[in-house]
Amino acid sequence: MADDRPAREPARRPGGRTARVRRGILEAAAELIARDGIGGLRYDQVAELAGVNKTSVYRNWPDRTTLIADALATFGTDAAPVYDSGDVDADLVGFLEALAAATASPQGRALLNVVTSARENPELRAVVDEVFDRRLATLRDRLQTAVERGELPATDLSLLGAMLAGPVQLFVSRGARTFTRADARKVSAIVLAGLRTTAACDGAPVVGRRAT
Amino acid sequence: MADDRPAREPARRPGGRTARVRRGILEAAAELIARDGIGGLRYDQVAELAGVNKTSVYRNWPDRTTLIADALATFGTDAAPVYDSGDVDADLVGFLEALAAATASPQGRALLNVVTSARENPELRAVVDEVFDRRLATLRDRLQTAVERGELPATDLSLLGAMLAGPVQLFVSRGARTFTRADARKVSAIVLAGLRTTAACDGAPVVGRRAT
Repeated sequence: MADDRPAREPARRPGGRTARVRRGILEAAAELIARDGIGGLRYDQVAELAGVNKTSVYRNWPDRTTLIADALATFGTDAAPVYDSGDVDADLVGFLEALAAATASPQGRALLNVVTSARENPELRAVVDEVFDRRLATLRDRLQTAVERGELPATDLSLLGAMLAGPVQLFVSRGARTFTRADARKVSAIVLAGLRTTAACDGAPVVGRRAT
Repeated sequence: MADDRPAREPARRPGGRTARVRRGILEAAAELIARDGIGGLRYDQVAELAGVNKTSVYRNWPDRTTLIADALATFGTDAAPVYDSGDVDADLVGFLEALAAATASPQGRALLNVVTSARENPELRAVVDEVFDRRLATLRDRLQTAVERGELPATDLSLLGAMLAGPVQLFVSRGARTFTRADARKVSAIVLAGLRTTAACDGAPVVGRRAT
């Protein structure tokens, strides 16, 4: 108790004890949001799950909405990275696999929870928008590079991004079975082949199978 | 009050007054779930929005979970029908357009709300599963028919269904812009062309763009 100095700003050494405690609190908060939604988030449960004093949670996040926002925002940065190996087909398979894992994680489910239940809260809505926008923007940037290098034909990159990420999110949130690397390969192969084929026939009617 | 006979089962003439009242209550409930989530659903607000007495709501649905389940279940039957005109490409465009409209509707948003927030409630989870399963099953049946007729190559139809419905759901729930008929045409054309192309090369490595 003699060592508890709430008036003093804790040191913020990256990787230090304070950083570890903060990260632990944010991970615990995300896990509880994933389980119970925003409405069910309680400071004492966060502290218990993170293995810290309730005081630590209150001192770092006096405001509840900020705690929720930070728990979701820290997650968005590197959950599903898009690499540039020079081979867009291979990079997309890696991204779709990472996206499936990220969506199935507690933080991923917390995000999906907030998307639908925090419509009325502009601050949280902004955080969710930013995480999704950043994720889709990273994907779009990689696709844009591929277009510039002639690996892909020019197209609406937002729609193309949804065609790659959408199937993963539906599969994972429906929870029928795990989205595998083979699934990632199939989705990527079909979408890219379809894009290249339809672009090659641009202006011409889509090839059908019927004689009429 | 003399006419209020709660012990007697109300008549269920299809299209009659009782049916209209019940439908109005379920639509109001779905709209409120879409706006506030399950937790915020209040009988007095349902009654007010439906323009009926609170007694009518309680008499028909003494159990709150049943009211929520019914509000979602009635929606699932015909929100996004899949037609069979004999041309799978055209039928899928129509389905994707209907799915986008259904997902953007109050009932569609209510469903998405429940998907993520009712994980712990087996009864509601079952209803949501049924609505989504039925929708994807209808789509899968249509795809199966197309495979049998030789319009499409044989493939994992659950994954193919997710590749068609997933982009629509991501687009609509992100709310960046409306999903148009042109988008429906593009998604359907790319996925089907990609499926036909990759199936034709089955076993062979995916065609790349790089010389190395």
